[in-house]
Amino acid sequence: MSIVMKPSATKGELEEVIRRVKALGLGTDVSSGEFQTVIGVIGDEKKLDFDQVKLMPGVYDAIRIQVPYRLVSRSYIPKDVVVKVGDVSMGGDSPPVYMCGPCSIESYEQLYRIGKVAKEAGAQVLRGGAYKPRTSVHSFQGLGDEGLEHLQAAGRDLGLPTVTEVRSETEVEIVAKHADIIQIGARNMFNQDLIEATARTGKPILFKRSFAAQIDEYLSFAERIVANHNKNLLLCERGIMPLGGSFKPQTRFTLDLNAVPILRRETPFPVIADPSHGTGRRDLIAPMSRAAIAAGAHGLMIEVHDRPEEALSDGAQALLPSQLAGIIRTCNLLHKTIDESETPFSSDLGDGKDGHR
Amino acid sequence: MSIVMKPSATKGELEEVIRRVKALGLGTDVSSGEFQTVIGVIGDEKKLDFDQVKLMPGVYDAIRIQVPYRLVSRSYIPKDVVVKVGDVSMGGDSPPVYMCGPCSIESYEQLYRIGKVAKEAGAQVLRGGAYKPRTSVHSFQGLGDEGLEHLQAAGRDLGLPTVTEVRSETEVEIVAKHADIIQIGARNMFNQDLIEATARTGKPILFKRSFAAQIDEYLSFAERIVANHNKNLLLCERGIMPLGGSFKPQTRFTLDLNAVPILRRETPFPVIADPSHGTGRRDLIAPMSRAAIAAGAHGLMIEVHDRPEEALSDGAQALLPSQLAGIIRTCNLLHKTIDESETPFSSDLGDGKDGHR
Amino acid sequence: MSIVMKPSATKGELEEVIRRVKALGLGTDVSSGEFQTVIGVIGDEKKLDFDQVKLMPGVYDAIRIQVPYRLVSRSYIPKDVVVKVGDVSMGGDSPPVYMCGPCSIESYEQLYRIGKVAKEAGAQVLRGGAYKPRTSVHSFQGLGDEGLEHLQAAGRDLGLPTVTEVRSETEVEIVAKHADIIQIGARNMFNQDLIEATARTGKPILFKRSFAAQIDEYLSFAERIVANHNKNLLLCERGIMPLGGSFKPQTRFTLDLNAVPILRRETPFPVIADPSHGTGRRDLIAPMSRAAIAAGAHGLMIEVHDRPEEALSDGAQALLPSQLAGIIRTCNLLHKTIDESETPFSSDLGDGKDGHR
Amino acid sequence: MSIVMKPSATKGELEEVIRRVKALGLGTDVSSGEFQTVIGVIGDEKKLDFDQVKLMPGVYDAIRIQVPYRLVSRSYIPKDVVVKVGDVSMGGDSPPVYMCGPCSIESYEQLYRIGKVAKEAGAQVLRGGAYKPRTSVHSFQGLGDEGLEHLQAAGRDLGLPTVTEVRSETEVEIVAKHADIIQIGARNMFNQDLIEATARTGKPILFKRSFAAQIDEYLSFAERIVANHNKNLLLCERGIMPLGGSFKPQTRFTLDLNAVPILRRETPFPVIADPSHGTGRRDLIAPMSRAAIAAGAHGLMIEVHDRPEEALSDGAQALLPSQLAGIIRTCNLLHKTIDESETPFSSDLGDGKDGHR
Repeated sequence: MSIVMKPSATKGELEEVIRRVKALGLGTDVSSGEFQTVIGVIGDEKKLDFDQVKLMPGVYDAIRIQVPYRLVSRSYIPKDVVVKVGDVSMGGDSPPVYMCGPCSIESYEQLYRIGKVAKEAGAQVLRGGAYKPRTSVHSFQGLGDEGLEHLQAAGRDLGLPTVTEVRSETEVEIVAKHADIIQIGARNMFNQDLIEATARTGKPILFKRSFAAQIDEYLSFAERIVANHNKNLLLCERGIMPLGGSFKPQTRFTLDLNAVPILRRETPFPVIADPSHGTGRRDLIAPMSRAAIAAGAHGLMIEVHDRPEEALSDGAQALLPSQLAGIIRTCNLLHKTIDESETPFSSDLGDGKDGHR
Repeated sequence: MSIVMKPSATKGELEEVIRRVKALGLGTDVSSGEFQTVIGVIGDEKKLDFDQVKLMPGVYDAIRIQVPYRLVSRSYIPKDVVVKVGDVSMGGDSPPVYMCGPCSIESYEQLYRIGKVAKEAGAQVLRGGAYKPRTSVHSFQGLGDEGLEHLQAAGRDLGLPTVTEVRSETEVEIVAKHADIIQIGARNMFNQDLIEATARTGKPILFKRSFAAQIDEYLSFAERIVANHNKNLLLCERGIMPLGGSFKPQTRFTLDLNAVPILRRETPFPVIADPSHGTGRRDLIAPMSRAAIAAGAHGLMIEVHDRPEEALSDGAQALLPSQLAGIIRTCNLLHKTIDESETPFSSDLGDGKDGHR
Repeated sequence: MSIVMKPSATKGELEEVIRRVKALGLGTDVSSGEFQTVIGVIGDEKKLDFDQVKLMPGVYDAIRIQVPYRLVSRSYIPKDVVVKVGDVSMGGDSPPVYMCGPCSIESYEQLYRIGKVAKEAGAQVLRGGAYKPRTSVHSFQGLGDEGLEHLQAAGRDLGLPTVTEVRSETEVEIVAKHADIIQIGARNMFNQDLIEATARTGKPILFKRSFAAQIDEYLSFAERIVANHNKNLLLCERGIMPLGGSFKPQTRFTLDLNAVPILRRETPFPVIADPSHGTGRRDLIAPMSRAAIAAGAHGLMIEVHDRPEEALSDGAQALLPSQLAGIIRTCNLLHKTIDESETPFSSDLGDGKDGHR
Repeated sequence: MSIVMKPSATKGELEEVIRRVKALGLGTDVSSGEFQTVIGVIGDEKKLDFDQVKLMPGVYDAIRIQVPYRLVSRSYIPKDVVVKVGDVSMGGDSPPVYMCGPCSIESYEQLYRIGKVAKEAGAQVLRGGAYKPRTSVHSFQGLGDEGLEHLQAAGRDLGLPTVTEVRSETEVEIVAKHADIIQIGARNMFNQDLIEATARTGKPILFKRSFAAQIDEYLSFAERIVANHNKNLLLCERGIMPLGGSFKPQTRFTLDLNAVPILRRETPFPVIADPSHGTGRRDLIAPMSRAAIAAGAHGLMIEVHDRPEEALSDGAQALLPSQLAGIIRTCNLLHKTIDESETPFSSDLGDGKDGHR
């Protein structure tokens, strides 16, 4: 942290700031110029409360030097992390992974039937919701534990690893028992207790960005997973809040593809995009899937339902199985085209000489 | 719900929509005009998935007739609800209530010392955090259970009821045992399991609006509390996301005072405003406290700390005890001035004849 | 500006940054510590392109020391500016001013009729739109020049100064000829040519904040008015974008009352609030008017129409004349109550010792 | 429009609504059911003020049936519009177009030098700013008319059509004289007078979306161009406001690629993406360019500068010429790959049977 004193700051104010920094076991590096004094903080600046420092008498402003997400940054883990689940590798130079299935698990039969066509279309991971976070108390809330059993059985019978969302600390254990990848949904991105309890299972975690989180804030919560000794982390962009206004929004959320190359550059972890929740519209899944892969996503999470008008949740955004195969084939072609071009994905990562950390 | 069919919709599409509505036990009321057909849904429209209906072939759009928060609306509970805790009444025509104390409980001594000056200044409820939701894993996380014991002891010794935040389902029981009012914080507004578990304690709940929730969405989650048979509900506006952009924002959040008269008009429950978290700036607490009371707030939640530069969290926004008494006295004067004017608070509520529900 | 070099910056990179700063006629004040080097820029840092500097090799980050709106800040003009139009004084310790009238001028008769009841209710300035910025090309666009003549005539006949919006550089001259105060609307806040042309008339300007502008950005555009030697500046908060989402928003915009005390503290100019456009709802005008005055607003701009269901624009938010008198009387009482309290408006302004500029 | 009456609406209220609709020359189609009455409006619903109608006594809500941008919608112009400038075709099935050059024109020599390498890299249109919209009054404001002359000369000498921004009505004529395509920038998207004056020149217009405009609002302003008999319209997505919050945003704006397939589906006009302004970061231009083309963009606008650290504006986001050729070649490969796949761009447009208009 660099602490910039006001031109009008007194000697006593300067000394008091230095005293507080040192009291936390940190060093200081004072640079007094003609115009103003700047205090460089030496050591782990996270011990200092950023807002607190700015409040102190005589302080003009303070500037962070460390990123607020060191443990998930490339300065901590320089090389790409590849997360493996069964035979599936995700991240790094692995080919794109597709996690497909219905929004909600409605029965074993429904899940197996949809999973089968998804697998034939190219999906490598089976998704399905057992506990559904819902806005309305009156909506379908998911099958719960019974759904988890269907998921495990369908995954086994199809030979596909599975992913499902955990919604509450009390369900972490049972979800970890039945699923191969545990999803922490967008609404729980700020739920530190759930994040930490899930991290401690050691299982791979698909950690979704909140629709209300800036990227640095998202990563500062992802850090809690690695801080709990779990590096099986999959990051996932699934749409931010649409612009407000009095016009009818065209999408439920705004899939933020800028996050894909930024996350790849800042962190070593695989980056997944979810165009289904990210847009809420079936007709946007094909173009936004292509765009996500072209931006550098390591994989896609796509909702599929063969009878969307009967789906108990989110049917409006579910892809038909007949559409899925074409999308996956085109996305794989795009991935190959870029990787074999003169500007492959690795060239996006830069060498630190382009003006951005 | 009114379902508007496309001008081009076929007879088969119309019949299919009607079939689905009736399959859910709802009635229909079909109005076929020269230009288009509209299906009125009779019964509890929440059984229908709103987005689902819009997806059906031949449907142009659908419009909700019921508000998505019926159980907390004035159409369900017409008269103001007064929530009582000890000797303190909140809501309706009660005088404003002030919930004051430090952000984090640091020790019994600290809490008692601050609570004492807060009480002398006019505060009727003692607040203090035991479990702190924090963005960074490296920040002070609160004293936990020990903090709850200090809270209970300080409240008893000062003769003040207490409020503290519950952060996780696993802590609901112990918080309910020690505190008089349980706060569900902004980050947990979407956490349906925590909301429901807390509601079932029957204790008064201070339910904060998320910084990312539109008002109707906020109320649709508040509904879960009443649906669990708990009407001891206090609503609380504590700031929404500031506008994005490349300039340094002036406040951490944007206290949305529009929410105060809207919540009072739409619901019968007491409405509290939190200018401390809502702005994050000590120097804005006085003007925004006055404004909140003038807008119709039933009370304020204000952070106070006598040694803010030593506070373990959020010192930058804590008020000094010497400032609190003046603010409370001025707010009480404003409340009285408005209630005795020719346009008292009750005149804000309207009679349904002014173009708004 | 403080330019923080990366720990890894080379001597050559440091020298290059210093060379560029000096090439602009600015001085440098280099502070080399053990850990990092910080370059203090001496002189008018606005000569440096902020984003440009951050891009230079070896630079970690840069931090502004000067506010981006020096000419409208209290460091440039410490004392409150009072703007006078006819007999009306606005700003400083003057009593609140009320600018009232219809959204659109529809005829002399309509404007005079509404202006008369507004004056009787306590309004001191007559507002009315001649050129209307409209979203749809199909909506009523205003009477144009004819409307300006009605405005001037009605103002003269009622003995009230007038305010109306200028929409285009080509209309500046004629608006300046007919109106006493020229309004630059929210949609034109970023329109530098219009701002500068209007400023050069020397007329009082009511400069509205865009619904998409952070406060510092708003002030950086307000600066263009003072830079053109016009200090007859009235700032006006009229609502920011509501939060996005799939729920029906309760208001058209979100009146941001936090802006009122911030603008009063940062600048010496009068601060007006517009609850009519800021909320778009007639039933919110009374509580938000009271709140704005309690927050420290020097005045209010309120739309009034005696036949709102016939208004050619914005009838839904226009107040009935019968409601206006009560609101003005209550607001005046609140203003007096606060000014005579132990925490008058002047105590909001601080003495620079409370941790904020 | 469908007007839904309240269940409690009186016969008089219903008749009054019908009377007002008919007074505007519109027909009505009343459907009275057991539960509620719905009035279908026959004719051009834009004659009705939407907010006005919702205000009328007895009205519960109103729903638009017509899109607010009919003249630019595919229901008005079903087939793709191809805009031609010189030898360059934009839109429809044309190959992608690249509009490249410096942010600001600094001299003929600078513009020609950069334009030459851009052309060699594959650019077909030369861009350069003569009048720069700037946040700060203290920044470089552009060369003005002299810049226009350089642009025309460089375009002629390089054999490239040109595009530049018009900032004010007073400059429309001179810009139209010198440039082949006139850009209306994001800050002027709401400036109806500028839009209309520019449209009347008949010249091709690159019309940028405001960072604060929802898509439907953007199109309702684009409609003003076609309403002025100009169909040489190029739509351009250039980034929306980033999410607010207290963390340092990673990008200046959020390039919203969801807008690309939505605009292609809703309108027949070419859709351009601007990753330079859309992100403000040079290192994001390659991945976001690829993503934009994969999403279906008909072209890209990219800032290029060979000496970015000397650029008088926006150097931080300008691409180096050495990077441009690789990006263009990869983007062309992606475009070809998708168009020859089993899911070509045309398959994104749907047939109206997928649940969205």
